[in-house]
Amino acid sequence: ANWLMLQGTEKPNQAPAAKLWGFAQIEYQSTDDTKLKAGPWAGQKAAFNQMAPQLDTASGFNIRRARIGIRGANFPLDSNINYFLMAELGNNGITTGGNASQGQLTDASVTFNHLEGARVRVGLFKTPGSEELLKAIPVFNYVNFTSGTDRLLLERFFDNSTGDTARSASVGAGRDTGIQIFDAFRNGDWENSYAVMLGNGNGLALTDNDENKDLYLYLSTEKVFDNTVGPRRHGMKFYAWMQDGKRTISISGVSTEKNRKRAGLGMTYFDGKYRLAAEYITADGMIYGGTSGAALPGALSNNGTQTSSFSVLTDEKAYAYQLDFGYRVQPKLELNLRYDALDSGTEVDANYREFRTTTLGAQYFFNKKTSARLNYEIRSIDAPKLPSASAVHDILDTIDNRVSAQVTMVF
Amino acid sequence: ANWLMLQGTEKPNQAPAAKLWGFAQIEYQSTDDTKLKAGPWAGQKAAFNQMAPQLDTASGFNIRRARIGIRGANFPLDSNINYFLMAELGNNGITTGGNASQGQLTDASVTFNHLEGARVRVGLFKTPGSEELLKAIPVFNYVNFTSGTDRLLLERFFDNSTGDTARSASVGAGRDTGIQIFDAFRNGDWENSYAVMLGNGNGLALTDNDENKDLYLYLSTEKVFDNTVGPRRHGMKFYAWMQDGKRTISISGVSTEKNRKRAGLGMTYFDGKYRLAAEYITADGMIYGGTSGAALPGALSNNGTQTSSFSVLTDEKAYAYQLDFGYRVQPKLELNLRYDALDSGTEVDANYREFRTTTLGAQYFFNKKTSARLNYEIRSIDAPKLPSASAVHDILDTIDNRVSAQVTMVF
Amino acid sequence: ANWLMLQGTEKPNQAPAAKLWGFAQIEYQSTDDTKLKAGPWAGQKAAFNQMAPQLDTASGFNIRRARIGIRGANFPLDSNINYFLMAELGNNGITTGGNASQGQLTDASVTFNHLEGARVRVGLFKTPGSEELLKAIPVFNYVNFTSGTDRLLLERFFDNSTGDTARSASVGAGRDTGIQIFDAFRNGDWENSYAVMLGNGNGLALTDNDENKDLYLYLSTEKVFDNTVGPRRHGMKFYAWMQDGKRTISISGVSTEKNRKRAGLGMTYFDGKYRLAAEYITADGMIYGGTSGAALPGALSNNGTQTSSFSVLTDEKAYAYQLDFGYRVQPKLELNLRYDALDSGTEVDANYREFRTTTLGAQYFFNKKTSARLNYEIRSIDAPKLPSASAVHDILDTIDNRVSAQVTMVF
Repeated sequence: ANWLMLQGTEKPNQAPAAKLWGFAQIEYQSTDDTKLKAGPWAGQKAAFNQMAPQLDTASGFNIRRARIGIRGANFPLDSNINYFLMAELGNNGITTGGNASQGQLTDASVTFNHLEGARVRVGLFKTPGSEELLKAIPVFNYVNFTSGTDRLLLERFFDNSTGDTARSASVGAGRDTGIQIFDAFRNGDWENSYAVMLGNGNGLALTDNDENKDLYLYLSTEKVFDNTVGPRRHGMKFYAWMQDGKRTISISGVSTEKNRKRAGLGMTYFDGKYRLAAEYITADGMIYGGTSGAALPGALSNNGTQTSSFSVLTDEKAYAYQLDFGYRVQPKLELNLRYDALDSGTEVDANYREFRTTTLGAQYFFNKKTSARLNYEIRSIDAPKLPSASAVHDILDTIDNRVSAQVTMVF
Repeated sequence: ANWLMLQGTEKPNQAPAAKLWGFAQIEYQSTDDTKLKAGPWAGQKAAFNQMAPQLDTASGFNIRRARIGIRGANFPLDSNINYFLMAELGNNGITTGGNASQGQLTDASVTFNHLEGARVRVGLFKTPGSEELLKAIPVFNYVNFTSGTDRLLLERFFDNSTGDTARSASVGAGRDTGIQIFDAFRNGDWENSYAVMLGNGNGLALTDNDENKDLYLYLSTEKVFDNTVGPRRHGMKFYAWMQDGKRTISISGVSTEKNRKRAGLGMTYFDGKYRLAAEYITADGMIYGGTSGAALPGALSNNGTQTSSFSVLTDEKAYAYQLDFGYRVQPKLELNLRYDALDSGTEVDANYREFRTTTLGAQYFFNKKTSARLNYEIRSIDAPKLPSASAVHDILDTIDNRVSAQVTMVF
Repeated sequence: ANWLMLQGTEKPNQAPAAKLWGFAQIEYQSTDDTKLKAGPWAGQKAAFNQMAPQLDTASGFNIRRARIGIRGANFPLDSNINYFLMAELGNNGITTGGNASQGQLTDASVTFNHLEGARVRVGLFKTPGSEELLKAIPVFNYVNFTSGTDRLLLERFFDNSTGDTARSASVGAGRDTGIQIFDAFRNGDWENSYAVMLGNGNGLALTDNDENKDLYLYLSTEKVFDNTVGPRRHGMKFYAWMQDGKRTISISGVSTEKNRKRAGLGMTYFDGKYRLAAEYITADGMIYGGTSGAALPGALSNNGTQTSSFSVLTDEKAYAYQLDFGYRVQPKLELNLRYDALDSGTEVDANYREFRTTTLGAQYFFNKKTSARLNYEIRSIDAPKLPSASAVHDILDTIDNRVSAQVTMVF
């Protein structure tokens, strides 16, 4: 599907002045709540076995997303202008961190379609990038993101590179506030698209926190099957993207500017029965580092001398990939299998971690707007560059598999 | 009226895909602002004479509730599935405490009506329980809740059992996130209903804070008069309910699990001219304990040695009841009289308090969607198990009567 | 235009039960980020050269406003009652300060039109006052407010008169919660209006923080040209207003009540081609005083002994005026010129500041609901009553001119 067009434009002469819409995702997740097997917080709860973002329980219900939005051609007589507004009222990284709260704005854009080949979109919207983040969440085929998308692309904001026990703002959510030039061009069955965006590089903050701006580039080409349309149209797509910016963060008390670069390429295939997606991502510069000892942020170590806190690696590299298969055994039932890998902190042996997850999934489509998902994630993290005597191996071995069930309802 | 059905389902083949609706309640309240007559905070403001939840003034205007919601059958061709979303933007316990804010989600549920006799509702919604909390607020006949509902059912969340000067989260608001099996069965004029729910037991948090889950049970039977329908249908209803769960709270610095059980039974009668409601509630385990010396939370005692704070009785019992009469002197004017009693902390003499309130009220219905309410509450609190020399008697004697006026507008 | 009627009423028998509407403003602002030229924070960032309200950057994109509202006659069969609800999801003074957040309620009112000549509006709404604040933001002709409106009318709330590094609540936004009696009377081409309001005097808090209430008075008369209607109707209007209240603020640790009085008069003219507006405002009592040394709130002085903080002058006076011209060179393009002056702190020489701003502007109307604005503000602040050797002259000389571009989209 073409997310640039589906999210940034409306069909000419068909859009209402204000279409009220949205969706909710209600879920249950559970792990075995295995306690940390080693390290300064041995025996305490492990962050990766708890439900995000509060990390207070290993199992429970959650209203993961509850979004309400309005979109359309605000003055229907002028089909050159359309808009998209949306707010998040669920419980996730968007509505937590710093002053974030339920009712957080996730999208607020206006698109001007006056220029042939160069539509202009201004405001807050999804940045042109990774398919996993750019696609509409209601047609995301799993409950949880891959490790690569979660840790490399879903930007966490902190005031300091180490020592913070809470995020200072909403998670980035693959969005930014700025201006984008984009369009799509049909050439027979193929649809070619591009986007160039300049943004604050400050996630959902709506405003900037420094003078630096982020640059985003995106290219895609898709062979559309049978002139299908919409977010689940049939086709084979290839795409590549990059983003490049700087962040201001306090390192040992000194306000410092650090690079944050990301790039990726991938493909998707869907013919109504078989679905395939593959993506490769690289990261350079600022990379989220998790919590000390994999303990809960704010937890006091057993000897009382350390408090676990978040860290950001400010000059590291990482790469990640995923392979995702879907098969519709019936029109209403799809079985899914996803393998994702993340190698994070490749420049310094002590930072290096290998995240590997295999996800078994099933989706049932009650109707076009309501579905249920059941996922089982087989998860591992390794640190192969550390000496075999390191306690880190036992800490990472604490990670549990995870089961999750989710209902998605679009209105 | 049948709240399980009115809130959890839509009429088959009549519901739109998205009905935008909501309501606002604008009010003015006032007490004499009598200052504490005794105790460590003598002469200072008394918490129970101030306007909730800020407790900053004894009189003033307040936007008590401003709710915006969307409900319907999201895919109208499939009448087996419906949903209900709502957010609170007014000023009350829902939008205050911890990170709560205006725009707080109060309802986000999806109901699956596929199984005969066992509808399934998942998400955040009102728990099956006390009529006073379960009924729709726009048809609540008073401005303020009874003491029993206020202190036993509207759960306050704190990190510690004593010493906190602020709530750690939204008030529970009679809601939880989880899964409910329910249905209603018509047998002649009688409608029998049941509900079984399993939830986080964490109020409006959307997620859980511990692995414990709450169980809710509910039964009702109602003789429906003249096949009337809706939230003010005529009928005579009998109901019983219980809920049972555990809470995790820090007691003297130690994270502890404590029981929280509630149960009740009651009846309602309404024939268009006369209205009657009666309810009896018991509480066991965690019970809200108010503020030290009835002073404002955070207030420094006159001798400078104590700060008034909230407390929760973690192993106590209480019971409460109410009797509520209404008489329509004209189709548009109803006179109301309510008596409610709460005996809280019945296990330990020092905890024991008797709350008694008689409320005189009038309601004027401008039209089916707009009404005004005027209430006068004659309030008293006593501590009959304390020695007559105790300063507590004078502190409790500080409580003022309260006058309130409210406009309710449903759209 | 008649804002009392446009905002407080609906056209009889034409209003829907619930009209969903709103608007978004997306902007880019920039100054030269000149650093403070003198004083304890010399060389650091100057507050007045940063983007409000975070003051973190001198240039960037911002979603200044994103408002979603619902209005109408809630029970359409009864045209005597109408309502107006709106929430702010953008980034500005409304959604920051204290516990404010995105999703903040800005309007929640119900109007009863039963009495001839005395409509009654209750709830949260714009107070009858200055044209610049009372008018609908989508038809505001500039990006930024005049200095007089910004510093005298957009009330900032603080716990203490000095020393606070953050506001304690949303900015007042020209709104209050209370009750208003108002109406408009047509006499030939002339329309005469009045409003009397009593409110909490606590801005957007929805509730009060002390027992004092604010009184608002408003009178206007407008000659309507050619029976035009709506927010951009053609006419010549004259108006006068006042508001009078008290505020409770801590001065050197002592909770104190202080007066806050404002009054003004002005006129507007618009005939479709030429637009003219003039207004004069006086302030007495509490007046916003900016930050120490014009530094960022919370910034440590170069010698490490002072932290810059906000201040409120609690017993001062000020007056301000503006002249605003518009000329439609084409039906879609308007050129604008505005001069505004504020003399603040006229009673004490050390407080006295002269703010002068000349704004050059252009507006392009893509259609009736979408426009773009480009502004260049030539700004100066002087302190003519201070000795010429004072460092304040150099500090004030730090202020930069400001360029801003904005897209406004109404749906």
